[in-house]
Amino acid sequence: MKPTKPAATRTATLAEIAREAGVSAPTVSKVLNGRADVAPGTRSRVEELLRAHGYRRRRAEATRSPLIDVVFHELESAWAMEVIRGVENVARDAGLSVVLSESAGRLVPGRSWADQVAARRPHGVVLVLSGLDESQRALLTSRSIPFVVMDPAGDPGADVPSIGATNWQGGLAATRHLVERGHTRIGAISGPSRMMCSRARVDGYRAALETAGLPVDPSLIVAGDFHHEAGYRLGLKLLRRADRPTAVFAGNDLQALGLYEAARELGLRVPEDLSVVGFDDLPVARWVGPPLTTVRQPLTEMAEAATRLVLDLGREDESPAATRVELATSLVVRSSTAAPPD
Amino acid sequence: MKPTKPAATRTATLAEIAREAGVSAPTVSKVLNGRADVAPGTRSRVEELLRAHGYRRRRAEATRSPLIDVVFHELESAWAMEVIRGVENVARDAGLSVVLSESAGRLVPGRSWADQVAARRPHGVVLVLSGLDESQRALLTSRSIPFVVMDPAGDPGADVPSIGATNWQGGLAATRHLVERGHTRIGAISGPSRMMCSRARVDGYRAALETAGLPVDPSLIVAGDFHHEAGYRLGLKLLRRADRPTAVFAGNDLQALGLYEAARELGLRVPEDLSVVGFDDLPVARWVGPPLTTVRQPLTEMAEAATRLVLDLGREDESPAATRVELATSLVVRSSTAAPPD
Repeated sequence: MKPTKPAATRTATLAEIAREAGVSAPTVSKVLNGRADVAPGTRSRVEELLRAHGYRRRRAEATRSPLIDVVFHELESAWAMEVIRGVENVARDAGLSVVLSESAGRLVPGRSWADQVAARRPHGVVLVLSGLDESQRALLTSRSIPFVVMDPAGDPGADVPSIGATNWQGGLAATRHLVERGHTRIGAISGPSRMMCSRARVDGYRAALETAGLPVDPSLIVAGDFHHEAGYRLGLKLLRRADRPTAVFAGNDLQALGLYEAARELGLRVPEDLSVVGFDDLPVARWVGPPLTTVRQPLTEMAEAATRLVLDLGREDESPAATRVELATSLVVRSSTAAPPD
Repeated sequence: MKPTKPAATRTATLAEIAREAGVSAPTVSKVLNGRADVAPGTRSRVEELLRAHGYRRRRAEATRSPLIDVVFHELESAWAMEVIRGVENVARDAGLSVVLSESAGRLVPGRSWADQVAARRPHGVVLVLSGLDESQRALLTSRSIPFVVMDPAGDPGADVPSIGATNWQGGLAATRHLVERGHTRIGAISGPSRMMCSRARVDGYRAALETAGLPVDPSLIVAGDFHHEAGYRLGLKLLRRADRPTAVFAGNDLQALGLYEAARELGLRVPEDLSVVGFDDLPVARWVGPPLTTVRQPLTEMAEAATRLVLDLGREDESPAATRVELATSLVVRSSTAAPPD
């Protein structure tokens, strides 16, 4: 399966598109190349026809720039650095430079971004925790610019190539570890519910409780945004309860560090009074006190796999073996988890 | 002063360079545009003449791509993310995309990097903790591609525009703070001695001791590499001494976190048994336990200033106000410093 190349055969040549749009072939070419010197009305008419005909540029390899685009949902955290390293590793070996964009908190980058990408003609686009709308997908497809979603935020659709991690398994392993230590009141701080990775982790948490015969208390599950501040704020909320949990699955490492801070503020010791499990295994997880038990997500390897996949998709003579992959997560036990207090 | 534009007037046109090299003008143009279809011998002859004549491409603005290059010494740490955010902030406002490169631990990026930059014609290059050799500078200058060094690693030369921070002042403030708390045996873990920022911080540390009338014990000054592991390893070395220091200026935040780990391993409490001051004020400094007293270096603002400067240098009608700037550092007192143990 090669999802960015629709099964339908190309139904129109560039000349035919030009004729139908009532413009010259060089004008269609200008639109394809993202040139600015085309009237907006002409441009959208041509784009519409390109999309309607499922036009795909031929011989894209010859016209590509030695670039690869990577688009982040946000560039805020150490998380992003792990991903950048992975993209950079593969790009360097392929002789490509990395263009970095941020969709600035939106889950879909802006329209002008897509135009810029069309104009610079990279070998491919890696979207991190980010998606594309219909017209952006059509625009990249018509230019034969392949794209891959890393760690899909929403549900990217069956035909979109993606590299993720086994989030559900990770949530399960994190919570089972706490159950095995003897905890029965275990809280969870999730990420945003619109992110599939976040939902999958919490579902894994629930599955661990249910398969252990423990009740799932919905009031112990709170939704953050994967940032430190949310872990602190929601941590205070959970830990100030009279029937506070003895352990919390913090959804990710940054929220776990926020939870550490909340516990410190309330005079609770980790792990004696509170066990904490994170998710990601950022470098900082090893450095904090106590070192954090967490679910390792191989971010750099995921980014490498996404970059290799997008380069494979761009080779006209080769089909990648698999275009929807989840890499394994694994529990890393450090010093933030222990038996519950008596 | 506009350092990337030499005072000497342009002594040769493209046609003259071509004649002297015994090639056609389009061939010189190909070399300038970084095209691959030029014989290596021809190419180096043309480059040599461009350099000898101090040739500068005219009307560079018209031929630029909407890109800005940022080159890192290494992409390892959370430090780099703060810088990327600053470059991205300014680039986005200017409608430019950011191309990211890593000189992979070398202080000067490779030759092929310079060729790639010449070929993609960005608006400018921001070099982070990184420099350029003579031929790379000549290559960028002949293409009218301005560059700025952020946080110069070596001594970049008086004519290279740069944005730094007041490292000496920061080292002084960090150490004075420890002296004022009553410490008299204060260690220092520096960064690599080839980096000027590292030397300046340790010189500030020495100045604080000397102006307080305290002896400088060279055996208490050890050189790391700004990574966590060095802080841990050298921290163990300092703290295992019978006459161990009661406080350490850790050179940067990551080394401070390594020092935390060394202290934990030896059963020493921060700040009761050991005071620690970092440098940088990465987000993680607030999150660790205890929150780290550190010298704030405005990394994002420095990157923004460097990016604005490089864009100013590229405008032919405008001279930037200042091309060598050091932004102020400031001490942020948190919970990792206290009076020495009795």
